[in-house]
Amino acid sequence: MITASSAVSTDPSQSGVAIEGALRNWEALLGPENIVCDAPALRAASTATFSTSHAIPAILRPGNRREVELVLRIANQWHVPVYPISGGRNWGYGSRVPSADRCVLIDLSRMNRIVDFDEDLAYITVEPGVTQQQAYDFLRGRGSRLWLDATGAGPDTSLIGNTVERGFGHTPYGDHFSHVCGLEVVLPTGQTVETGFSRFEGSRSGALHRWGVGPFIDGLFTQSGFGIVTRMTVWLMPAPEYFQAYFFRSDSPDGLAPIIDALRPLRLNGTLRSTVHVVNDYKVLSGLQQYPWEEAGGEVPLPDRVMQSLRKRHQFGAWNASGGLYGTRAQVAEARRLVRKALAGRVDKLQFLDERKLRLAERFSKAYQLITGWDLSRALELVRPVFGLLQGVPTSQPLASTYWRKKSPPPAQMDPDRDGCGLLWCSPVVPADGQQADELVRMAGRILLDHGFEPAISLTMVTERSLACVISIAYDRHTEGEDEKAAACYRELSQRLAESGYYSYRLTSQSASAMPSSPGYDALLRAFKGGLDPHGVLAPGRYQPSE
Amino acid sequence: MITASSAVSTDPSQSGVAIEGALRNWEALLGPENIVCDAPALRAASTATFSTSHAIPAILRPGNRREVELVLRIANQWHVPVYPISGGRNWGYGSRVPSADRCVLIDLSRMNRIVDFDEDLAYITVEPGVTQQQAYDFLRGRGSRLWLDATGAGPDTSLIGNTVERGFGHTPYGDHFSHVCGLEVVLPTGQTVETGFSRFEGSRSGALHRWGVGPFIDGLFTQSGFGIVTRMTVWLMPAPEYFQAYFFRSDSPDGLAPIIDALRPLRLNGTLRSTVHVVNDYKVLSGLQQYPWEEAGGEVPLPDRVMQSLRKRHQFGAWNASGGLYGTRAQVAEARRLVRKALAGRVDKLQFLDERKLRLAERFSKAYQLITGWDLSRALELVRPVFGLLQGVPTSQPLASTYWRKKSPPPAQMDPDRDGCGLLWCSPVVPADGQQADELVRMAGRILLDHGFEPAISLTMVTERSLACVISIAYDRHTEGEDEKAAACYRELSQRLAESGYYSYRLTSQSASAMPSSPGYDALLRAFKGGLDPHGVLAPGRYQPSE
Repeated sequence: MITASSAVSTDPSQSGVAIEGALRNWEALLGPENIVCDAPALRAASTATFSTSHAIPAILRPGNRREVELVLRIANQWHVPVYPISGGRNWGYGSRVPSADRCVLIDLSRMNRIVDFDEDLAYITVEPGVTQQQAYDFLRGRGSRLWLDATGAGPDTSLIGNTVERGFGHTPYGDHFSHVCGLEVVLPTGQTVETGFSRFEGSRSGALHRWGVGPFIDGLFTQSGFGIVTRMTVWLMPAPEYFQAYFFRSDSPDGLAPIIDALRPLRLNGTLRSTVHVVNDYKVLSGLQQYPWEEAGGEVPLPDRVMQSLRKRHQFGAWNASGGLYGTRAQVAEARRLVRKALAGRVDKLQFLDERKLRLAERFSKAYQLITGWDLSRALELVRPVFGLLQGVPTSQPLASTYWRKKSPPPAQMDPDRDGCGLLWCSPVVPADGQQADELVRMAGRILLDHGFEPAISLTMVTERSLACVISIAYDRHTEGEDEKAAACYRELSQRLAESGYYSYRLTSQSASAMPSSPGYDALLRAFKGGLDPHGVLAPGRYQPSE
Repeated sequence: MITASSAVSTDPSQSGVAIEGALRNWEALLGPENIVCDAPALRAASTATFSTSHAIPAILRPGNRREVELVLRIANQWHVPVYPISGGRNWGYGSRVPSADRCVLIDLSRMNRIVDFDEDLAYITVEPGVTQQQAYDFLRGRGSRLWLDATGAGPDTSLIGNTVERGFGHTPYGDHFSHVCGLEVVLPTGQTVETGFSRFEGSRSGALHRWGVGPFIDGLFTQSGFGIVTRMTVWLMPAPEYFQAYFFRSDSPDGLAPIIDALRPLRLNGTLRSTVHVVNDYKVLSGLQQYPWEEAGGEVPLPDRVMQSLRKRHQFGAWNASGGLYGTRAQVAEARRLVRKALAGRVDKLQFLDERKLRLAERFSKAYQLITGWDLSRALELVRPVFGLLQGVPTSQPLASTYWRKKSPPPAQMDPDRDGCGLLWCSPVVPADGQQADELVRMAGRILLDHGFEPAISLTMVTERSLACVISIAYDRHTEGEDEKAAACYRELSQRLAESGYYSYRLTSQSASAMPSSPGYDALLRAFKGGLDPHGVLAPGRYQPSE
């Protein structure tokens, strides 16, 4: 079926012929109802939260693994490049937009079966279309005692999509790729591979023991164009007997380093089992409200005096953090004591919240302020979703912050791509070391402010030894010239951070070519890509080093 | 340098020419002092703890990464297969013996530098020659508060060697491959690749954040012939404020299932952070003493009445377990309460030991028995090394059990290969589910007894959801016919377990060809191997599916 002799077409008229031929075959395979070719839909799919230039000639919607295999065989036959998306909610990194021009989108959202589930061994096996909300509802509907880990990217985020981008959430299972097992992957030429023990007939440990026997290959199918993951087991966390969230802040801009150095030992010794989320004032503010155009007198970036007054009004700090404590009441009590001790003298406010206390606060926020001295009234809107995320409850709340610089409020049905919300995420990894974290955020802050953007920054203690930092470049795409300014800012930021040794854990679908080179690794990946995908049809350019 | 046109020689006389040419080049590179060709040394290196038939023509001892690269280039030039070993202590799985005949051994033990170390971020970066004991001594010598994870394979075991075989130990860092980062790997053709963030110039997170950016490839270099790992960062665990070991036993052969089902929830909810080690009576006995030839009247396998009387005499159960509790005193106290509660009514004896109590017991074991009712006098010899292993202290104690069926006692300098100790390890993974664990050990027990061997079995709760089971076939290689009987037993055992869905996490260097096939995965690996190692010179056959 694959004709190796037919030349790869680079001439546009020839590629037009190729794509028409491929589309005929795909339509015969999937039916016309699963091929999208209308211009508005294609334009929407090629729109991200920043400027992109890759057009999408069509969208295919296969319904099962067999169809994915055949879709890829047809792509090889006609040498037409394709790009898979699961949920397509890759906000800040390129949404649905492919990593190369004229890729046909393979939308996997119809493949949304939950194919296995085990309460005792605590896992769920899903297809790429399964969303956080769907999995959450499934578990609740069954009366399961298991918790999902959810990201802040919204209820419609695909579990597989986020994991293959190596995203993270907020519970002890926050580092997603560390908590999955047994992939089913369709390779670029249409063959299917199962990984770990799943590859063996009748294996009992396919969903349980990730390494299997022989080379462990799962990592190859994350952040790559080496295959389409069509099934994955996601491990789930048993709900603890007791859960408590903690929130604290530091009113000093120098407050970050002491926080990181105080918490690292607790992460390392297992007292803190989940990711700790530390955010600066800009990040909190963009979660609380849109840009204060009036107070800022229309000026950007946000004047310091406005930030000072907003910080006072809403009572958030220069640095603000949240995390969860999970366990029996005694385990949580001891963790609380240790957190309190570690942070004593280093933070300005430390608060522990459980469900009972939070419900009370919601009902009597004014009285609560009298008792505890902390005004939760405005913060509660922000606290509830974070409190939920720490227990793996999906929320669309963080999505609202993509409307930060817009002049009209977020609509009920938010769609940052459609609404011209500008958002570019740069995500350097930094050692869990106060001094280095401080250096990084100061550097990033200066660069963003110089380019006219507010440096909204989060640092997540995603592992015991490292922080994943997310720097948001947020703007209004409908304001003339902002797309270009944001792109320039992102370029300078990425480059300057890399020069200082802070490399990103994740790239936008448009920025892989800017990745610094590393000759041995790059050559190896090119050899793999050449062997696996001789016609270069699958996600060309995706996390691919430039030649 | 690599001449692709020179044909691969299969004719022995031609391969003789090739190896002579290669040896001349290797000698010029490494010096004659680093080439071993004398017959006794080569015979020793090709001797394992079971029957093997692969001869070794020479041993090379490169001293640094550059020499490894050049050694591989010469191997490619002459098409001579090579096989790397780090420490060569792959007991029960083939020791130093290569996975194919006439491979030149690359002994990496001279490369034993500790190249980086960080107390705060808790890691050590090592070369393949660095042993458990060396790393342990290094840490103690520096007054470090960090703990290594050690396996029971003895002080001279290589950290890298064990990790690339995906071995495990006993502390919270017991699953070794989950706790390493940033590999340096020499590919079969002699190019070098660095993985994760280590691949970038000046990166600060190379030792800290394993995924890096782009495809994660570290897993390819475990259980494979895809490269020689010449450097690796190993994460270390900060010593907890307080440590306590627990030991318990069940006197019933039906005791395993309730133990597993009781402990799984504690593993899943993070109360038990380390591997729990559950062993049957045969396993305990082979740790305590050699085969009781006299009591058994020379009969094998061990008569049931003898086991009954030995169990009573030494006070061990049909099932016996150990594990560690790590944390503050309060954290350990709460874990102790939960372990006690979970095991209540399910086990016959549960004992918690800390350093103070153990020292007391060692000094006053008789008095201790009066106070606690538990006779530690004989068990103490076994307890001390386990107590140490739970804190990452290397020990050679478990090695003594390889002398189980010998008729003379283990010498001061133990060498199971030299001394004709027969040992074959079969290591199926089983779900952390009591009923399945029970089914597996009953099946394995019957097969071993039928073949005339004592089924010494351990089950390690190495992850939250799975157990790594190690079944020992132990015998005396100097007894006529035993090699063949053991090989037949191993074959039947592996096959019957696989038929029931229990596949091994690890294979002997001689048994990869018996691995069940999985077409997609096998084809993919063959393609990788062909691309990476066009002349098939590196570790041919190692974890390689048969054609």
